[in-house]
Amino acid sequence: MSLPPLSSRAQKTPASPIRRLAGLAQQAEDRGTKVYRLNIGQPDLHSPAEFLEGVASYREAVVAYETSQGNKSLVDAWCDSLNRDYNIGVGEPQMLVTMGASEALIFTFMVCCDPGDEILIFDPTYANYIGFSAISGVRLVPLPCSIEQNFSIPSRAEIERFISPYTRAILVCNPNNPTGTVSTDKELQMLLDVCRERDLYFIVDETYREFVYDGRTPRTIFQLAGKDPRVVVVDSLSKRYSLCGARIGCMITWNEEVRRAAFHIAQARLAAPTIEQHAAAHMISTIGPDYIAQAHEEYRRRRDVAVEALREIPGVIVSSPEGGFYLLAKLPIPDAEDFAQFMLTDFSFEGATTFVAPAAGFYMHRESGQSTIRIAFVLKELDTRKAIRVLAEGLKAYMARGARS
Amino acid sequence: MSLPPLSSRAQKTPASPIRRLAGLAQQAEDRGTKVYRLNIGQPDLHSPAEFLEGVASYREAVVAYETSQGNKSLVDAWCDSLNRDYNIGVGEPQMLVTMGASEALIFTFMVCCDPGDEILIFDPTYANYIGFSAISGVRLVPLPCSIEQNFSIPSRAEIERFISPYTRAILVCNPNNPTGTVSTDKELQMLLDVCRERDLYFIVDETYREFVYDGRTPRTIFQLAGKDPRVVVVDSLSKRYSLCGARIGCMITWNEEVRRAAFHIAQARLAAPTIEQHAAAHMISTIGPDYIAQAHEEYRRRRDVAVEALREIPGVIVSSPEGGFYLLAKLPIPDAEDFAQFMLTDFSFEGATTFVAPAAGFYMHRESGQSTIRIAFVLKELDTRKAIRVLAEGLKAYMARGARS
Repeated sequence: MSLPPLSSRAQKTPASPIRRLAGLAQQAEDRGTKVYRLNIGQPDLHSPAEFLEGVASYREAVVAYETSQGNKSLVDAWCDSLNRDYNIGVGEPQMLVTMGASEALIFTFMVCCDPGDEILIFDPTYANYIGFSAISGVRLVPLPCSIEQNFSIPSRAEIERFISPYTRAILVCNPNNPTGTVSTDKELQMLLDVCRERDLYFIVDETYREFVYDGRTPRTIFQLAGKDPRVVVVDSLSKRYSLCGARIGCMITWNEEVRRAAFHIAQARLAAPTIEQHAAAHMISTIGPDYIAQAHEEYRRRRDVAVEALREIPGVIVSSPEGGFYLLAKLPIPDAEDFAQFMLTDFSFEGATTFVAPAAGFYMHRESGQSTIRIAFVLKELDTRKAIRVLAEGLKAYMARGARS
Repeated sequence: MSLPPLSSRAQKTPASPIRRLAGLAQQAEDRGTKVYRLNIGQPDLHSPAEFLEGVASYREAVVAYETSQGNKSLVDAWCDSLNRDYNIGVGEPQMLVTMGASEALIFTFMVCCDPGDEILIFDPTYANYIGFSAISGVRLVPLPCSIEQNFSIPSRAEIERFISPYTRAILVCNPNNPTGTVSTDKELQMLLDVCRERDLYFIVDETYREFVYDGRTPRTIFQLAGKDPRVVVVDSLSKRYSLCGARIGCMITWNEEVRRAAFHIAQARLAAPTIEQHAAAHMISTIGPDYIAQAHEEYRRRRDVAVEALREIPGVIVSSPEGGFYLLAKLPIPDAEDFAQFMLTDFSFEGATTFVAPAAGFYMHRESGQSTIRIAFVLKELDTRKAIRVLAEGLKAYMARGARS
């Protein structure tokens, strides 16, 4: 008599690299150290008043199931806002509301791929894609991108080298988490062409769509692809409206088969939460353009501050984030995870320390990210400046310590 | 150049049999017909005032991510209430908050089984288990139970006949959806013994735990099994507190490996919704015993009304539901789905019709459920009485029509 074993897929699902050090950060705070959290994409921007009004305006006596496809007012308002901004003619038959972009991605992986099938991704990648692949049994095939080339999309020839008989899709996060890279129309068109020629799905995660800087205009892939049924877009309110905790995302596709199959999976989990959908519907219907404009301007300033301050640290290589709110920085040390831990357990400067995410967890080729950290510029300008000052001091102390040992 | 194919698992995920006829019901309402919805477990009982107070009391400026394991106050309050009611000594290390029992079941399937592994279930079964199995690639192996024996658990010898080298778990929903059967301690002990001897997980879905009638006392499997690491309990606030739309469930186990692996999957989807967890924490911390006592009494009365009224219809065989709020009724017709559709498209009585769920979708051996419907006694006494009166008239009309054609 012994215990039943864990499944092998459970053994393969990694602990989140972003959240792994969270316990140590908590302990640092318990010791009275101020912790600047640049480790996670949790903005400090206030959520829109319109959302909180929506929560307060919930008046139903019975908190009943929402429909499996999502709150109709939310779907209609979301489609309207996409059509207003991008003129793509999207409607209810194309949209499925999900619990964050996370669930939309899990549904998409399951509908497009069987276990053992492959999706091409660009490495480094959003770490939770690796978790979704473990859950769905899909193999992610990483195409290496380098900080020296600002993580741009590899050439068509290079991409085609990685396509196998098992490849079902290409997945791109645009603007990119964790690199901050924004793909050009030319790059996206090339990926679309490859998908068309090789009968692949093109999955585009547009969670950070509105956050592009330096004169770039926000774009959705549907502006290039039209109603191409190969395209599946994953979207989210989490970052755009600082509503990470609301868990409202969606999947958009003109592929009726894909939409229907995803809907059947959605039916099995019944529905996304009622009250947060109600509040989101109220918000999207009533909010003006100012909220995103201000958020955009705020993130742009924070990015400038973060990049500038990081570039002043000797030996640090910083990517040039063109969008989103992350960047990668390569440090002149061999093990960024050890350094991130050191910052939480052994270091403080003027009563504060900085929590960064070791980037190895974002690399499928882990060794490529060994010296790299991911920074989320989600704290207000002054805090970002202070946090990077503390980081610089920490790096100095860490390197001096290393020399001693 | 053609379109990429759907995955074969997507093709296997069934449309929900409960929700399939929903469009026809909508059309009937659009024609002005009153539709009594006995088809779905959406109670008409008011959600607790304490939950709605919790929603209204949400005051954070940033709707931030909750932790992946769930709101700490919610976990503590939920554990306290379980310990108060059942004295099982459960605490935070055993609990993971999920988006409804649905997500807890999906996590459990994934952690305990690899694709191709098997879980024994009792047939008929909760239809969405079939959806979860398609998502996770797990084979459900159905043990037939019959309405004539009130769907009681088969003998140990019979169960052991179905165990194969691929069997990883036995899953029981207790009290049962869709049958209303409540398993005895003797039956549960037998299943636990089998799991112990054959190294299987014992998964118990206790969504309807408090709703047992005729002098039975609510029980959790942990009272029998103690801290046995083979046991995984799935729980939910949806039915107990008429909070289906809040999507708050949990997974409870003393198996640290299973808990940790499920937590890693939970990290990949980041967190369950923040505001609904906040409200649920407030509710469980402040609510008294009256809410459930009244709900219990209400469902008991509705059950009595429903069973009595159904037994008066000639040729109908009704199960004796001892708990939960569903029952199965075998009709003297060959095709209950055709009948359910007829009720929505071709029939009304005094301006009303009744929406019932064809039970075939709850049967893995579909032919066993061909003549059977599932009824949820979720409407108030008077409506239940009226709904079954309309059902009886509809059955008469349907059978007369059949004779004509």
